[in-house]
Amino acid sequence: MTGRGDQSVSLDLLKQKMANFAKERDWDQFHSPRNLLLALVGEVGELSEIFQWKGEVPKGLPDWKEEEKVHLGEELSDVLLYLVRLSDICGIDLGKAALRKVELNAIKYPASSNTNHGIAHTS
Amino acid sequence: MTGRGDQSVSLDLLKQKMANFAKERDWDQFHSPRNLLLALVGEVGELSEIFQWKGEVPKGLPDWKEEEKVHLGEELSDVLLYLVRLSDICGIDLGKAALRKVELNAIKYPASSNTNHGIAHTS
Amino acid sequence: MTGRGDQSVSLDLLKQKMANFAKERDWDQFHSPRNLLLALVGEVGELSEIFQWKGEVPKGLPDWKEEEKVHLGEELSDVLLYLVRLSDICGIDLGKAALRKVELNAIKYPASSNTNHGIAHTS
Amino acid sequence: MTGRGDQSVSLDLLKQKMANFAKERDWDQFHSPRNLLLALVGEVGELSEIFQWKGEVPKGLPDWKEEEKVHLGEELSDVLLYLVRLSDICGIDLGKAALRKVELNAIKYPASSNTNHGIAHTS
Repeated sequence: MTGRGDQSVSLDLLKQKMANFAKERDWDQFHSPRNLLLALVGEVGELSEIFQWKGEVPKGLPDWKEEEKVHLGEELSDVLLYLVRLSDICGIDLGKAALRKVELNAIKYPASSNTNHGIAHTS
Repeated sequence: MTGRGDQSVSLDLLKQKMANFAKERDWDQFHSPRNLLLALVGEVGELSEIFQWKGEVPKGLPDWKEEEKVHLGEELSDVLLYLVRLSDICGIDLGKAALRKVELNAIKYPASSNTNHGIAHTS
Repeated sequence: MTGRGDQSVSLDLLKQKMANFAKERDWDQFHSPRNLLLALVGEVGELSEIFQWKGEVPKGLPDWKEEEKVHLGEELSDVLLYLVRLSDICGIDLGKAALRKVELNAIKYPASSNTNHGIAHTS
Repeated sequence: MTGRGDQSVSLDLLKQKMANFAKERDWDQFHSPRNLLLALVGEVGELSEIFQWKGEVPKGLPDWKEEEKVHLGEELSDVLLYLVRLSDICGIDLGKAALRKVELNAIKYPASSNTNHGIAHTS
């Protein structure tokens, strides 16, 4: 139940933590699907602000200060936590859905082909 | 390595699946941080489209057709998968960051208080 | 050239004001298409935060305080200003494109029909 | 009232066109503030998809095909039209608010200074 140590963090652990968090603060009343969706959009906005004036950014963020990376981790987390909570409130098993989506993507984009990347990803 | 059965799906499993997926298709060249961020924004747009003309939606989506819920699960997954991939490409441990963020939130919003919810969440 | 008084504010006026604003501050160097797009996404996030915990909101915002409406006007404006600037930097005549899009929409959704609203708007 | 010819397209003209468009199709019932906001987020997603796999894009889009620019103009327009409609439904005079915001920005970022661009824009 700790999700720490050797084990990787699971979506179910985060779901449970978010549910407890809301319950302990009497926030379930605020956590309707569209409220959570708009909160998620708000966090995506904050994530975008981190990257907005930087021009292209290389993988691994080699020139970023440690505090910028910490901030980035927080904004990525905020998006994730609202996504996990939104899924839970909608009754969607996010982990199961994600594994299924990876499989669907593998059928849609066979590994032998790397063409039409742009078009493919937008559909 | 299957991530199914009794175990919950972990963020590391999804990270590994996304990395393999990109490698097998020679897509690493496209997966720069800002490309992935914009792809994530695109998926958040598709997620929003599902909810856009519905007015308020009750928890659990009691009136939604099964195919609508499946579609919702796919769009939630697309957001998650790009989020996991973006974090990986940026060198951020998303699961670790998310657990830390939950703890920071618990300090910021003590459980005994349920006031100032709106203001608190926007900061 | 004032855009005030009796006349309605035009997109060209805002375009010119934004161009002057950037030039006077030597900000043209930052105003690349994708930088501006991410800045726009950031502002959409701030706009969403205003609505995120409110549940459904009636037209005209009858219960909102004056300062909330002023804040809303500022966030709507931020989205508009970045949209105008992004269009300008991309060499798109936004006003002309918008009038054309209204005409295309009129063809796509004939006035006699009000069916399939949800499907229609998402395509 | 045409908005064509010598004159620049005004926000009021677009507001009026959107209001007529909705009325003629009996769509006012769907145009609540949060419905329109989510529709706007959806269009921002489609706008982002155009740029998502391109890496950095130079000003003026010199290498884009004409059809890509037309598509871009349509997505920019969709964002604008929903923004105009959202403002109208909220009772906000978008043109007036935008002019005021430019003036506030001029006070916040005096023209003599070009420092702290990144921090300034995110606040």
